[in-house]
Amino acid sequence: MATARTLAAAAGAARAFSSTATSGGGVSMVQGASRGIGLEFVRQLLKRSDEGRVVATCRAPDSAVELQKLRQEHEQRLAVLPLDVTDESTIEAAAASIGETHGSLNLLINATGILSIPNVIHPETTFSKVQKSSLLLAYEVNAVGPILVIKHMWPFLKAGGRSETGRGFSLVANMSARVGSIGDNGLGGWHSYRASKTALNQLTKTVSVELGKKDNIACILLHPGTVDTDLSRPFQKNVPKDKLFTREFSVQKLLSIIDNVKKSDNGKFFAWDGQEIPW
Amino acid sequence: MATARTLAAAAGAARAFSSTATSGGGVSMVQGASRGIGLEFVRQLLKRSDEGRVVATCRAPDSAVELQKLRQEHEQRLAVLPLDVTDESTIEAAAASIGETHGSLNLLINATGILSIPNVIHPETTFSKVQKSSLLLAYEVNAVGPILVIKHMWPFLKAGGRSETGRGFSLVANMSARVGSIGDNGLGGWHSYRASKTALNQLTKTVSVELGKKDNIACILLHPGTVDTDLSRPFQKNVPKDKLFTREFSVQKLLSIIDNVKKSDNGKFFAWDGQEIPW
Repeated sequence: MATARTLAAAAGAARAFSSTATSGGGVSMVQGASRGIGLEFVRQLLKRSDEGRVVATCRAPDSAVELQKLRQEHEQRLAVLPLDVTDESTIEAAAASIGETHGSLNLLINATGILSIPNVIHPETTFSKVQKSSLLLAYEVNAVGPILVIKHMWPFLKAGGRSETGRGFSLVANMSARVGSIGDNGLGGWHSYRASKTALNQLTKTVSVELGKKDNIACILLHPGTVDTDLSRPFQKNVPKDKLFTREFSVQKLLSIIDNVKKSDNGKFFAWDGQEIPW
Repeated sequence: MATARTLAAAAGAARAFSSTATSGGGVSMVQGASRGIGLEFVRQLLKRSDEGRVVATCRAPDSAVELQKLRQEHEQRLAVLPLDVTDESTIEAAAASIGETHGSLNLLINATGILSIPNVIHPETTFSKVQKSSLLLAYEVNAVGPILVIKHMWPFLKAGGRSETGRGFSLVANMSARVGSIGDNGLGGWHSYRASKTALNQLTKTVSVELGKKDNIACILLHPGTVDTDLSRPFQKNVPKDKLFTREFSVQKLLSIIDNVKKSDNGKFFAWDGQEIPW
């Protein structure tokens, strides 16, 4: 079993980009790849070796400029597909395409997340601002969405868990957040976002029990830290400078965890530094 | 601080129905009171003393036969109001009525919960049965509903926290379930129900931080055990006989916890026997 300490050590070690299980061949899918952490995952997965294919999905591939640039540079290795987690038919269509082209997945990273959209949803600073519509929207995007993606990619993850290219099992990594921890919740606020990430934690744990037993698939939850992205930008002013990570740094740390995770870590919730986060 | 041990002792003690804080005057609201645990809460709250008023709410008061019987027996002390947690306007209407008639609440028990409805929602025995519609419905009823009820009853709970009749603070008790615990989830399954109760736990904890500081209101979560009700009936066959509680027994235990809870227990999650449940 990889303990928090060994994972933390691994995360800091120079071998982060060496010959670990996922850095070679195989197929990785990054869901929510048009910007932020998802885009950086795609970039680093492509950069770390000359092999290994990546399927990147986002709501509107045509307007995902950075992703299209990567696509031009890595035409043979990167596929870009449309996928909107709130529209299950697009998840099914992406699954059909992956089934035809790749047939298996060794790694699935769910990187989408909603925190604020002007005039639609905003992290609640007080209970009086809690709205039913925000609670439901955050749940649909942050909790239900990733779970439906896993459900439809399940056959390919199953195949990836049996394949020789991988580490002996396929891995699902869901982007959660420390504010989803109930035990760690000393400040309150951010009701909709918190509850959606907490529910994602429970759903991932629930799914991990079944997939870990039946199908040689492990599922983990990751807290990327506070990363300088569009998602966090409106809320960065109270974050100490050394606690605001670049996307490059955060994803490097998260990929180290992904590389070094053991099957026995199935169902666990890790911060960027490899420390386990309480539920 | 009431430790798990002292609460457990209190739950088993003969003084369960003696002169504790909530057993005298004041106003208690039971949301989801037409049957099951909610109905039993109303019955015991009325039975335990000759004073103290109860507001019982349910979706369709006219067809709530048992509740109407209690209403006839306790005309001066029991008010029955329509409230459907999925329709916020009914919560607002109930709040307006309580504002006019009572003006304060010392205790709010959220007892509604959805687990299965034939052809609509059913606890998932495997991931392949997970449906978006079930995930969203369970969340709306089990997590969002109780939180909106607290939001609209907040002014009366605030008033109840200041009043002389109570224990010095008003209390919100949300019915959760042990399967909502992530740490305790070794079996998987029941995705929609689990995630909704986990989210309820996080939302209650989040709200408790603010209300506990500002308003002299405490919020707790309760696991009633597996109780012989309509909700659990389809799933009782694997429950050992001594683990299947009567409504009378479970509610007696839960009221003992409610009676003996301290302000410092704000935000905690207790089982029927007073033991704290991990998140």
